[in-house]
Amino acid sequence: MIPLIDVHTHVYLPRYASWLRSRSIAPRILVNEAGEERLFILENETSAGRPVGPSYWDRDNKLNFMDQHGIDISIVSFANPWLDFLSPPDAESLARDLNTDLEQYCATGPSLSSDSSLKRLYGLGLLPLVPGIPVSSVLEAISQISQASHLRGLIMGTRGLGQGLDDEALDPVWQAIEKAGLVVSAWGDKDNGHVLPLALGFPFETTTAITRLILSGAFDRFPDLRVLLAHSGGTLPQLSSRLASCIDHDPIVASRLKHDARFYLGKLWFDAVAYGPEELGFVAEVVSRAGRYETGSKNTMLQADRREGSKRMFFGTDHPFFPPLFASERWKSVVDNLEAINLVAGWGQEECDNVKGGNALVFFGLQQ
Amino acid sequence: MIPLIDVHTHVYLPRYASWLRSRSIAPRILVNEAGEERLFILENETSAGRPVGPSYWDRDNKLNFMDQHGIDISIVSFANPWLDFLSPPDAESLARDLNTDLEQYCATGPSLSSDSSLKRLYGLGLLPLVPGIPVSSVLEAISQISQASHLRGLIMGTRGLGQGLDDEALDPVWQAIEKAGLVVSAWGDKDNGHVLPLALGFPFETTTAITRLILSGAFDRFPDLRVLLAHSGGTLPQLSSRLASCIDHDPIVASRLKHDARFYLGKLWFDAVAYGPEELGFVAEVVSRAGRYETGSKNTMLQADRREGSKRMFFGTDHPFFPPLFASERWKSVVDNLEAINLVAGWGQEECDNVKGGNALVFFGLQQ
Repeated sequence: MIPLIDVHTHVYLPRYASWLRSRSIAPRILVNEAGEERLFILENETSAGRPVGPSYWDRDNKLNFMDQHGIDISIVSFANPWLDFLSPPDAESLARDLNTDLEQYCATGPSLSSDSSLKRLYGLGLLPLVPGIPVSSVLEAISQISQASHLRGLIMGTRGLGQGLDDEALDPVWQAIEKAGLVVSAWGDKDNGHVLPLALGFPFETTTAITRLILSGAFDRFPDLRVLLAHSGGTLPQLSSRLASCIDHDPIVASRLKHDARFYLGKLWFDAVAYGPEELGFVAEVVSRAGRYETGSKNTMLQADRREGSKRMFFGTDHPFFPPLFASERWKSVVDNLEAINLVAGWGQEECDNVKGGNALVFFGLQQ
Repeated sequence: MIPLIDVHTHVYLPRYASWLRSRSIAPRILVNEAGEERLFILENETSAGRPVGPSYWDRDNKLNFMDQHGIDISIVSFANPWLDFLSPPDAESLARDLNTDLEQYCATGPSLSSDSSLKRLYGLGLLPLVPGIPVSSVLEAISQISQASHLRGLIMGTRGLGQGLDDEALDPVWQAIEKAGLVVSAWGDKDNGHVLPLALGFPFETTTAITRLILSGAFDRFPDLRVLLAHSGGTLPQLSSRLASCIDHDPIVASRLKHDARFYLGKLWFDAVAYGPEELGFVAEVVSRAGRYETGSKNTMLQADRREGSKRMFFGTDHPFFPPLFASERWKSVVDNLEAINLVAGWGQEECDNVKGGNALVFFGLQQ
């Protein structure tokens, strides 16, 4: 029986929430007139902030959510705004403490079953990526994370050290991550709580960041880097042939890359947080067509491609974001994402099982 | 024999080129030290501008390009930066003159064959959409275009009157366009000549503009509006289920719309300028699944959906952009876009013929 594994699920650990409560400018947590805590990501948010509560920091709450939806294992990660707002010394020390907290959150949590060596919670650590921090501090955090047995990778925003992810100063960081065999996840989660930036802004940001990283040649320099893209890669899959065409018409950029742009999409991993079966089927095709840019074959085999591509995709919920209006309801975002996996035309039981958990067991090194 | 019709192909007519040559700030055309004309879209472009020449304004050049690639009919449109940079009086008078020029460019051009009433060139007119212009001037341009027998619609950027396309002040404009039965095309062509904005920027802009228009409820108020999206809809197809999910979690926006967001994608039309067969197949699926949001059916039938969705898609070249390095070569962008249509898994001869020309005959009212 393959477990259902959620690879896209977030926490604000208690230490992080306390920090947000202590702040006098955004990002911060305030208590409103009704006595409820509200989260403000941006100082000039015109809304009344967003609700924030135990689903963000309480482990039992997370486990209840998992039980309610039949999720066996969660790979828990920190969330926007991460440490972006901190000074280098604060970012460094908070990252260290939070990584320690997250390791403990997972390690002292329940096991999958009495006869299993697997736990129900694993985590993705945090790097102190803020402008002005010495790269050595970042490398130290990578070392800390790689030694924590329940941390299976790390989550990262799109800013890097303030110059984006294609900043050459990050090369030692990519090298260390590649060497440690850690998984890099997430990318682009800047949220201001409205439909337009939520629906379009995050995926655009993810797309821009990963495209810049591809154009920098990073995946030629670090071919074993394992990057898991949030929100099914944003919009990169739909733009990848256009990107390839634009590169073809720009000799300087073209000369920097060893492969057609579409080749690199086959070297990435994608969560399945896209809410629709057509989107997932399409991502699977885009992943698998990368092989054609090695062989030069132009054959398109729809069903076969979709089955092959499913091997690089992973179920996720985005919990605790998008809660239902009533606490007793199953979360629509979870139901939609699971249903989307089940409805992908061309996927059978095996592909669905792999996307729901089988792939994550291997990718995060959880196989028993 | 169904003609090959290019629905995405641009001109700078001679009058427009002259205007650009006369300007002392960007956008403008300058002669460089080598005696070549160069186009500067933005004043602070660091590059040496882009090459510009007869392929932009000479009709015989366009016809030669068409012959070289077996294109029977072109639906020619103006291009970025349109009239965005002009004062209201200049925009109004230049739009009027350019629409007259374009009608003549088409009307005095060759016929498809000696026994055909079809011409080889048709056009999309231009509206003087600039901040501060009276809506009555825009309505007058619509009236002019609807009376020009070779202009089959109009092309539009994403700015509207400076407030985007979901500006309520544009409601009379949509109404007039809908009533005149004109096609609206293009959306989002802001180009600064580098891979990243070319590959990602335009499609993001198209996506944002059309999403805002959907969220405004325009397609409920004007259900017969016929909008053709450039670049296969940007990235909206890949984000449409996410958009639907975000709307579901926002009661205010949800209450404004009659349908699930994905429903509206089935009411739109898409050019096939996406450079890859997987992208086109995916767009076809997204178009056809809109029907499921009317019936509540969850069935996904891959091949059937792709065949159905092909009815709203159209071949295009984006000429004269993306020229080859040597004048004698066939244009890679054209070859890629044609090949992509031929390689879509699930499309047969009929679907390919329709996307290459059959759909455009009906959509632009060219059927003999």
